[in-house]
Amino acid sequence: MLRAQINQWLTNNHDHGIKLLQKLVQENSIQGNERKAQTIVIEKLRQIGLKVDAWEPEGKQLVEHPYFASPRNKFKGSLNVVGVLKGTGEGRSLILNGHIDVVPEGDVTQWDQQPYSGKVVDGKLYGRGATDMKGGNVSLLLALSALRALGIPLKGDVIFQSVIEEESGGAGTLAAILRGYQADAALIPEPTNMKIFPKQQGSMWFRLNVKGLAAHGGTRYEGVSAIEKSMVVIEHIKKLEKSRNERITDPLYKNIPIPIPINIGKIEGGDWPSSVADLVNLEGRVGISPDETIEQAQKEFEKWIQALETVDPWFAKYPVSLEWFGARWVPGSIDLNHPFMSSLSKSYSKVTGEQPVIEASPWGTDGGLLTTVGSTPTIVFGPGVTEKAHYPNEYIEINKVFEAAEIIALTIVDWCGVER
Amino acid sequence: MLRAQINQWLTNNHDHGIKLLQKLVQENSIQGNERKAQTIVIEKLRQIGLKVDAWEPEGKQLVEHPYFASPRNKFKGSLNVVGVLKGTGEGRSLILNGHIDVVPEGDVTQWDQQPYSGKVVDGKLYGRGATDMKGGNVSLLLALSALRALGIPLKGDVIFQSVIEEESGGAGTLAAILRGYQADAALIPEPTNMKIFPKQQGSMWFRLNVKGLAAHGGTRYEGVSAIEKSMVVIEHIKKLEKSRNERITDPLYKNIPIPIPINIGKIEGGDWPSSVADLVNLEGRVGISPDETIEQAQKEFEKWIQALETVDPWFAKYPVSLEWFGARWVPGSIDLNHPFMSSLSKSYSKVTGEQPVIEASPWGTDGGLLTTVGSTPTIVFGPGVTEKAHYPNEYIEINKVFEAAEIIALTIVDWCGVER
Repeated sequence: MLRAQINQWLTNNHDHGIKLLQKLVQENSIQGNERKAQTIVIEKLRQIGLKVDAWEPEGKQLVEHPYFASPRNKFKGSLNVVGVLKGTGEGRSLILNGHIDVVPEGDVTQWDQQPYSGKVVDGKLYGRGATDMKGGNVSLLLALSALRALGIPLKGDVIFQSVIEEESGGAGTLAAILRGYQADAALIPEPTNMKIFPKQQGSMWFRLNVKGLAAHGGTRYEGVSAIEKSMVVIEHIKKLEKSRNERITDPLYKNIPIPIPINIGKIEGGDWPSSVADLVNLEGRVGISPDETIEQAQKEFEKWIQALETVDPWFAKYPVSLEWFGARWVPGSIDLNHPFMSSLSKSYSKVTGEQPVIEASPWGTDGGLLTTVGSTPTIVFGPGVTEKAHYPNEYIEINKVFEAAEIIALTIVDWCGVER
Repeated sequence: MLRAQINQWLTNNHDHGIKLLQKLVQENSIQGNERKAQTIVIEKLRQIGLKVDAWEPEGKQLVEHPYFASPRNKFKGSLNVVGVLKGTGEGRSLILNGHIDVVPEGDVTQWDQQPYSGKVVDGKLYGRGATDMKGGNVSLLLALSALRALGIPLKGDVIFQSVIEEESGGAGTLAAILRGYQADAALIPEPTNMKIFPKQQGSMWFRLNVKGLAAHGGTRYEGVSAIEKSMVVIEHIKKLEKSRNERITDPLYKNIPIPIPINIGKIEGGDWPSSVADLVNLEGRVGISPDETIEQAQKEFEKWIQALETVDPWFAKYPVSLEWFGARWVPGSIDLNHPFMSSLSKSYSKVTGEQPVIEASPWGTDGGLLTTVGSTPTIVFGPGVTEKAHYPNEYIEINKVFEAAEIIALTIVDWCGVER
């Protein structure tokens, strides 16, 4: 039985798989620093016989695209990587998409080990990127390696993608779409705790400038503290989050405390301890439901910020400025009845003996871009631990990496078909 | 009459005085950048025949002094300047102390002109430093110039000081004290709106680190936002400010809304819009009453910060760390019956025809250092506009600069005595 063979191959190559993930995690591949990690991926793709396409994204078509989002528009030294396994023909094609970039490690003092250790303790592999999402990428590579090693002749093409810039809004996946890569379906093994996410949240980054009035700290009552005013702004935004989430009734979200959160991730203001701060900068992200457009969400947020003047007359005189910048994730969704959904669900049940849990994703992924711009219906499913993404002491459970690899291998076979 | 002569000289030299202040204001003399402004001062001192002592402060005695406070301990390129006018003998000596350094300009968009313009409009001279405190320094220089031009032979020594580092805690004045400059009294023309401040507030800079727990912005409920926790800290500190100020009963403070304020001037935290912030840094200053010691105020603040654990259990697990750093101003006071108080008050009444307003200072000055370490009783009195110090569109009223110069000239004569 094919499943038994795949399972056996994965068991035989257990240590190899762990080592591959360790090597990838140990390469700190934050924005701008992806090259070394991509080199490891290219080596593996060549080893298993996929045709490698590696390039530095660039060009006006990319950076002027309406869905281009990144703090940078030059990607010199940053490789996007695609590996193609051409099918024998007349089968459905599949994109397997994973991002190689990771977010910064945050407060280093909160990590027990150094953040890029790749250390294995009690069946868990630790390090920034282990769960989000190099573990998932390794599941893809193991699935492909198994099928290649077993000599399974697939009918449909398989297009493996190791993209940059997911954490900032998808420029890597967009570059791959514009380069021509498209398929009948796509799988992204972001960390879903092995749940199947047919709906993917979108999100956008915003920047708010809150103004105050400077004065000497010793006569602070002569001024107006932009730090205190930014607290009013933060409370106001929490009310918007509450209101937007009260509208979500889709049962896919029933186990999620806040389906489309608004997070304020960064604050910076004032320049002198003895002066009243007259300017504070806030940066954050707004979640977008697949049932609204980016433009609708933006308009609502803009109106809400204007409404600050009714909360505090200070803002009528000194309005908070709002700017959309940097990262943006397009929301996406695949029809629950789409054949790729049953391909994946069936494979999941074959391997685990259980029905998969089907939910909505709590964060943005490149799935929206693949669905909307790439015309490639996408499911998000992967072995990582959702709660550890962007967290200190991030880890992934190694047995899940292999379980996901097995499920994905069977899904590939079922979707693309096998040449007899 | 001497007063008429001084008044006439000031009138004759009106344009010259304005030009001197303009030149000084146009030199952006923020910390580290004082040289050019000091060069103008040195030139003027030489012109009026004072013996100039200009040096770059340094040495262990200075930087290891218990009252040394500055973010830096190397002052290469930053001159401290003293000009001495030796008396004929057997008179009381006087220090005239003004700082040459200015604070940064803050949010440039809130200034109508560029911040170092020195522009004169409707009798006001604009620019960072005009009021705090180059206008006052020019009052001192005009007073001395008048007395020199009129050939008045003073009995006591006059020691003019143009110091650096007042805005960061007094390292310049401390260096002058350690170099041996001491006198029977001192005057500092900080911007008092022409009021007489016999009590000077002290203050200290603090830094607080507020911890959170990182998580992905899309699952922010898994983390704890250090930005939200810092708002709790800020509210808690406001309660301490209220409590400390409720204890102030001295009538000198009766017209001051908050006698010893606590200002949070700077906030910085989080590093990624899509991540929950796990660390926020707050910096500010605490006012110290002349009726308490620095150590007492510090202990009270430290206990209050520890008490955060009773406000929110998060802080029991992740206490806020507190660090005293950088600037510190020693509080100071002169006895209301001190002869220098009547010297200045009498001169004020002679020139203005009114009784001076006597109040407590709303901010720290180098007066505490001169009083405590320099054994030199000090009064703060000057022509600048208190509310414009550290403010955008800072200005000084030119007629006040000349009025203060006249008052100070008469005070010098009365205090130091004239040789017949």
